[in-house]
Amino acid sequence: MRMSQTVIRPDKNPPKDAATINHRLLVQAGFVRQLTAGIYTYLPWGLRVLRKIEQVVREEMNAIGGEELLMPMLHPAGIWKQSGGWDSIDVLYKLKSRTGKEYALGQSQEEVVTPLMSEFINSYKDLPRAVYHIQWKFRDELRAKSGILRGREFYMKDMYSWHESQEDFEKFYEEAKKAYLKIFSRLGLVAKATEASGGSFSDKISYEFEVLTEAGEANILYCDECEFCVNVDDIGKYDEGGECPSCGKGLLKPSKAAEVGNIFDLGEKYVKAFGLQFSDQEGKKRYPVMGCYGIGISRTMGVIVERFNDERGIVWPESVAPFMVSLVSLGVGEKAEEIYQQLVKGGVEVLWDDREESAGVKFADADLIGNPYRVVVSERTLADGEVEIKRRDSDTTERVKLGELVDRLI
Amino acid sequence: MRMSQTVIRPDKNPPKDAATINHRLLVQAGFVRQLTAGIYTYLPWGLRVLRKIEQVVREEMNAIGGEELLMPMLHPAGIWKQSGGWDSIDVLYKLKSRTGKEYALGQSQEEVVTPLMSEFINSYKDLPRAVYHIQWKFRDELRAKSGILRGREFYMKDMYSWHESQEDFEKFYEEAKKAYLKIFSRLGLVAKATEASGGSFSDKISYEFEVLTEAGEANILYCDECEFCVNVDDIGKYDEGGECPSCGKGLLKPSKAAEVGNIFDLGEKYVKAFGLQFSDQEGKKRYPVMGCYGIGISRTMGVIVERFNDERGIVWPESVAPFMVSLVSLGVGEKAEEIYQQLVKGGVEVLWDDREESAGVKFADADLIGNPYRVVVSERTLADGEVEIKRRDSDTTERVKLGELVDRLI
Repeated sequence: MRMSQTVIRPDKNPPKDAATINHRLLVQAGFVRQLTAGIYTYLPWGLRVLRKIEQVVREEMNAIGGEELLMPMLHPAGIWKQSGGWDSIDVLYKLKSRTGKEYALGQSQEEVVTPLMSEFINSYKDLPRAVYHIQWKFRDELRAKSGILRGREFYMKDMYSWHESQEDFEKFYEEAKKAYLKIFSRLGLVAKATEASGGSFSDKISYEFEVLTEAGEANILYCDECEFCVNVDDIGKYDEGGECPSCGKGLLKPSKAAEVGNIFDLGEKYVKAFGLQFSDQEGKKRYPVMGCYGIGISRTMGVIVERFNDERGIVWPESVAPFMVSLVSLGVGEKAEEIYQQLVKGGVEVLWDDREESAGVKFADADLIGNPYRVVVSERTLADGEVEIKRRDSDTTERVKLGELVDRLI
Repeated sequence: MRMSQTVIRPDKNPPKDAATINHRLLVQAGFVRQLTAGIYTYLPWGLRVLRKIEQVVREEMNAIGGEELLMPMLHPAGIWKQSGGWDSIDVLYKLKSRTGKEYALGQSQEEVVTPLMSEFINSYKDLPRAVYHIQWKFRDELRAKSGILRGREFYMKDMYSWHESQEDFEKFYEEAKKAYLKIFSRLGLVAKATEASGGSFSDKISYEFEVLTEAGEANILYCDECEFCVNVDDIGKYDEGGECPSCGKGLLKPSKAAEVGNIFDLGEKYVKAFGLQFSDQEGKKRYPVMGCYGIGISRTMGVIVERFNDERGIVWPESVAPFMVSLVSLGVGEKAEEIYQQLVKGGVEVLWDDREESAGVKFADADLIGNPYRVVVSERTLADGEVEIKRRDSDTTERVKLGELVDRLI
């Protein structure tokens, strides 16, 4: 993409109302704009990042047998009354049509997916089964000041599964947990699987996937020796500095953290409310065990920015960067066009700063946008048949022969 | 995809509440489920079709210089009050948060995109400019009985453009019109660009893109000799059977038609309401001319089903079919697996009916689902080292050597 041909520009001035790093940098770099508190437009480069995160999540959900479908956001009130959520969930947006029909805006999809699947799950032969969708959700949040970390409208992957037995659910939960850790690892994040309460979804323990960051809203205690980690906002039984109850060796350390995913054991709550039963091997009608698996796609984008930035801007991990390369051309005319085409043909995603701006402005904008590599072409480098290449997360520049550029970046 | 591994099944029983062909066939074939009137879940195969239509539209919008972004659906009331739509648009869903904040659900996005772009369009150098997004929209329809032809929640591409002059807008309008006709042609449809009123968007004439189908809600008159076509619900000046006012040769014929796209000349309505101005070459502040270009993605999917079906089911055009091939294996064990793998490796999208069902059930389901090719593998065909191949839109079967199958389908 040529920067001269896109209308959206980075802007070094921070937005007035940005209380968090992700909000500030995503606006300055030209990735998002806030429409109103908690509700954002994704500008072209921001949409590229969102789609890349979404695709990583999709691939790993497919890999464990999830089937993708797409459920609607406008829900008839009846299903929310049937589950009890209509009266008990305070973040549920409610509305009425002009003829008096009541609706809720989906903040989760148990109320849609459970009656839907009751048509398709009839026998033990239909189990286990997992379906997911990636869809926008709505929460009537009292406060929404954390940029895209906590939105009133936010993008989420939610998977649902049904199982013949608790044992089978727990087996699948372990697979899903591994898939989650793989997803976050592919996105450049270290997430901790953390015990928490089931909130409004379940009276059982749930698991949250928490990324350590000061911008997070959760308070966790994690063991400095093993994987043990708890959310102490929900479960206060543990002491800061105390001995790890899991390995007995490490000490429990406190941190702020952001929840990027969760897994709930929903037990029989929704299958009972919506009459989803299956015939077991003896022909007896039984309720399956149901699980729910969320990942906040837009929130994860915000967490990545909170984790990967410096005083000059964002430092995107390669897996989700809008482009692999910022190509900065300094007054070299046609030769830059040639190098741009060489990169495009080589399959390198490249943002070419072909504007008539100073080197200083171009370098500053490249750093703010945060693509993993910066490639500079100038008369000086071309005199040696070379370009200058620098990783965004390093201060070391090196010279690369023109003919070797694509190979260096793929 | 193996049918034994997906939970969703075709079902020969028509849904009770289906008043239209698209609703009935899409439910029977397992593509969608109605959550409530006008609101649908897209099951895995239905989602594949929706995404293919979306991708065709995206490619052609990119080709004429549209930049893709993504705007939110939950809009603060203020922007709708500023444009006047809050009080004048009867299909606008309105809601209040628990703290009394008022919102509308987006039924179009002029109110979001115009203030957004006022930040980026400042000078004549920033014009012309076109941005689009593909996003769900909401309309408080009094009736919603046409399946996915008219949804209360529906998927739409909407592009917006800004121009220095009326002349430049009209130049871009012609490009957009060509892009639209190309899109519908790629989707297997013949659309007619039809004059209509601008409705709530504009007091100028607008253009609708209409596909002739009995399931449509529009009444049109079209010339049987040239491209002339009008929507007579809006513009009554023309007579059925009369002489074409454009070519003077053809006669005007009536038809029902479904609107799959539209283009509005918005003039200065929204740029004035939101103060979007640019400095012209003399440094004078002026309002640009604004245009809006919609295509109903989910509606187009419904129109395709209305146009391409027979008594046995759907007949998908190749460009949007969920799979290119329905592979029907009749008791041939491992050899079918081999052929399935051969197709997958050859890049053919294939739905393998590997269920333990009769030939009759498998053939009926393949016809109902409507993939362009059916490939049958049986002991009889394998004895000759062949498979049987049949197009969904033909009754002729032919034999193809196993080694030539992939080439035949690519």
